[in-house]
Amino acid sequence: MTSEQVSTQVGLDGPVLIVGCGLIGTSIGLALRAHDVTVHLRDADPTVAHIAASRGAGSDDPPGADPELVVIATPPDSLADEIARALGDYPESTVTDVGSVKAEPVRQLLDRGVDLRRYVGSHPMAGSERSGPLAASVDMFEGRSWAVVRRAESTADSVAVVSALVALCGAVAVPMDSVEHDRAVALVSHVPHVAAALVARRLAGAPPRTLALSGPGVRDVTRIAAGKPVLWRQILIANRDAVTELVAELRGDVDDLLDALISVDGERVEALLVGGVAGAAAIPGKHGGPSSPLDAVTVAVPDTPGALAELFTDVGAAGVNIEDVRIDHDPARAFGLVDLDVAASVVGELVVALTARGWSVHA
Amino acid sequence: MTSEQVSTQVGLDGPVLIVGCGLIGTSIGLALRAHDVTVHLRDADPTVAHIAASRGAGSDDPPGADPELVVIATPPDSLADEIARALGDYPESTVTDVGSVKAEPVRQLLDRGVDLRRYVGSHPMAGSERSGPLAASVDMFEGRSWAVVRRAESTADSVAVVSALVALCGAVAVPMDSVEHDRAVALVSHVPHVAAALVARRLAGAPPRTLALSGPGVRDVTRIAAGKPVLWRQILIANRDAVTELVAELRGDVDDLLDALISVDGERVEALLVGGVAGAAAIPGKHGGPSSPLDAVTVAVPDTPGALAELFTDVGAAGVNIEDVRIDHDPARAFGLVDLDVAASVVGELVVALTARGWSVHA
Repeated sequence: MTSEQVSTQVGLDGPVLIVGCGLIGTSIGLALRAHDVTVHLRDADPTVAHIAASRGAGSDDPPGADPELVVIATPPDSLADEIARALGDYPESTVTDVGSVKAEPVRQLLDRGVDLRRYVGSHPMAGSERSGPLAASVDMFEGRSWAVVRRAESTADSVAVVSALVALCGAVAVPMDSVEHDRAVALVSHVPHVAAALVARRLAGAPPRTLALSGPGVRDVTRIAAGKPVLWRQILIANRDAVTELVAELRGDVDDLLDALISVDGERVEALLVGGVAGAAAIPGKHGGPSSPLDAVTVAVPDTPGALAELFTDVGAAGVNIEDVRIDHDPARAFGLVDLDVAASVVGELVVALTARGWSVHA
Repeated sequence: MTSEQVSTQVGLDGPVLIVGCGLIGTSIGLALRAHDVTVHLRDADPTVAHIAASRGAGSDDPPGADPELVVIATPPDSLADEIARALGDYPESTVTDVGSVKAEPVRQLLDRGVDLRRYVGSHPMAGSERSGPLAASVDMFEGRSWAVVRRAESTADSVAVVSALVALCGAVAVPMDSVEHDRAVALVSHVPHVAAALVARRLAGAPPRTLALSGPGVRDVTRIAAGKPVLWRQILIANRDAVTELVAELRGDVDDLLDALISVDGERVEALLVGGVAGAAAIPGKHGGPSSPLDAVTVAVPDTPGALAELFTDVGAAGVNIEDVRIDHDPARAFGLVDLDVAASVVGELVVALTARGWSVHA
């Protein structure tokens, strides 16, 4: 029986102590309270813990005995200290953290000779450019990935408790080791943050009329640049090896692009952009699955005015989104064949709906 | 009387001819049809024009006489040809285009000796990573900025007709000259696109477990990287002077960051990130105005269990979003003072709502 199989059978009854009542800690508290798990909240600033408690994330009274689980949700620089403290204070508890970098705190803990059998690192892939307990939400982790980073010495029970936390928060556990994790988040989180910040930096001090031309694109690209610099500084420094390697690769691409622009080489510019399209398409869909594949539905459409409009209206009424369309006008026929590309998952219902409305359809 | 004043008095009665039935052309057709303006649609591919017509963006029959306005919504490389053709074919019509770069096509037209009195360039700051008439929507330009680039020789009538187009589409006209426009869009559109593409490019071919950790941040940063490479290649090459200058500045920042990471200089990393926060905050709000300023509402809260939770519930019931909160516990008093930071525009209604629920409030 693997630890993943165990995890689906072992619940998390609580109590849970959450240390650090920022965005992530408070959101975990809200998610656990929604499952009636007893939650205690602690923060270096008691007012912050009090606000989190007022929002319903748990109680800001200290736990009476060893909690089943301690969740460390403090800034990166204090993770090692807080993990060591929790393991010492609560000798029966499993301890996890939700930090963005996994190898560095463990290195510090091993240097101090801390026994890590009851420690299992974790990292929910959710967040916001906003921070603090007021930005927290009960469904922050719903459908998100959540890395679970066990160590060779981690006990099966501790892995199961942390996996149960992930499940109760509605997230999907992704088991990996700390090196793989840190490289992965450099790619999908830390380098995107750096790029967003550096693009945004160019906008500071731009004339109002220039900024007035901002559309949805630049807003999306720079949204995460609003994240707390003091927090991100700690993340980038803690994961500097993986981040440096990728930023150096990015600089190589920037140099390539500059060369291509200066030599008016459209082919090379396009090649770089084509790589971007492939990368954007490689990101899985919101709920952790792959981007939904498309499939074609072919409809025979009479060659009369308004027939195509009627077809689009009927597809819309069926609640189906058309991703692309191709029309094959055969002069020898009194109708055209229209290929509708739609999400593969809705092909069946679209065929049924269109057939019911009198269209001649095949998938 | 300035041309902007004229523009609010001169309507656009139509007919309007839209050349190019992609995302933007079709969306303009939908917006004009919603105001009952007669619209004719033309595309190099008649099937595309037919699809746009089927969606209700106008008729794909040719106009009978000179349209009041011709809107050129073709790819960047064909803009000069299409503008010249429209000015020649329809000697009574005003001609505009919606291209992302303004100086280059005009340079080509002047080289050919084309009379540009009836031409006024324009550029709606809206779009999508999706393309084609099926991705079009009637409200694509609602509340967006729309640059209007008149020339010294532009007639007042032509400027007024193009301004009326902007108004009918629900957008906000931003008058500027072509040099200012091209620099501005390099900053708020072209460089963000480049950064998104280069970040996304790194993701192509990454292992599935790495990609599984993708959260909302990387999705937002890379969303626009899915845009058509053949289109963006034309945009970047056409605006290469302004783009090159900014990308070179970006490379300078990338070098700085690499240096700071390698020398483990947290202060320098943070300084770069702080610049990003300032830049993100400089982007105006969605509807073209400045980001909404915050104001504090102070509430006296009894020092009893649950009082703070009750306050948050009442603020939520008033439909107001709390951006930040500070609590001042004065040991000499039986209550605390709570400062709620909310959008300045909702301070009045929040004070009324909280007072009605029995809170002691001042703004």
